[in-house]
Amino acid sequence: MAESSGADMLFPAPGAKADLEAGDRLTPRFGPDGTITCVTVDADTGVVLMVGHMNAESLARTIESGEGWYWSRSRGELWHKGATSGNVQKVEELRVDCDQDAVVMTVRVEGHGATCHTGQVSCFYRSIPLGQSPRGGQSVMLANEGGERRFDPAAVYGKD
Amino acid sequence: MAESSGADMLFPAPGAKADLEAGDRLTPRFGPDGTITCVTVDADTGVVLMVGHMNAESLARTIESGEGWYWSRSRGELWHKGATSGNVQKVEELRVDCDQDAVVMTVRVEGHGATCHTGQVSCFYRSIPLGQSPRGGQSVMLANEGGERRFDPAAVYGKD
Repeated sequence: MAESSGADMLFPAPGAKADLEAGDRLTPRFGPDGTITCVTVDADTGVVLMVGHMNAESLARTIESGEGWYWSRSRGELWHKGATSGNVQKVEELRVDCDQDAVVMTVRVEGHGATCHTGQVSCFYRSIPLGQSPRGGQSVMLANEGGERRFDPAAVYGKD
Repeated sequence: MAESSGADMLFPAPGAKADLEAGDRLTPRFGPDGTITCVTVDADTGVVLMVGHMNAESLARTIESGEGWYWSRSRGELWHKGATSGNVQKVEELRVDCDQDAVVMTVRVEGHGATCHTGQVSCFYRSIPLGQSPRGGQSVMLANEGGERRFDPAAVYGKD
């Protein structure tokens, strides 16, 4: 796969546990699909905006450019976030976790200031009220948290 | 696999895009390994503490009990976070994203108030300074952000 060979070329293979956890070099542990998880957080509000995935090339471009690049698993292509909608993510800080299979990316969002393709500021616009149980065939209900919609997807992306 | 059959029994199969995005029922899109991604955030500071994974059973237990349960991919078992270390996660809020393959879980951490198995408050204790490039065989260097270590892993987990 393109993303695997890219990973081989761009970043060193992950070392032992001690190196991953305490080392000073980035050696990402890309998963079977060639990606790591990226949690994207708003620099001003601290709100988690989205969870995305980065292959080696998108991670490299993010570090090089200071803008958010992902690997779109649904489209199977590199994804410069905001290229269509204008909601480009300017990276303030990028952090990696102990075992180097996830990053937290703190950003300022340009354009409409929205991250979700539904037009909402954050993809996490619904809560799961606690104390419910899915057992016995019951549905777990969601609560809409009234997140702000900043743009009309039909106008920005065209008809689906 | 146990987690797939668990998913079938506990939650309805994901519906079409419109239902996933705008519906009021939880229909998680578990991946090939039977899990969704969980981003765990500190209720007081807003800091991202960890990224974990939940299969159907751990998601159900989290919603039912209001404590953080995960699926440990490395150990291949259900994981009641804090059962060994005392750093149990009391859930303040759980949110699901637009396409229902990720949740954000806002928690208060008991015990030492630490989440990372290294003893740090957060797993994201190193940053990746921007403007570096991995091309041409250069290493991307990490910067330790001096995160606070709340416990000694050797004392809590015993020798590795």
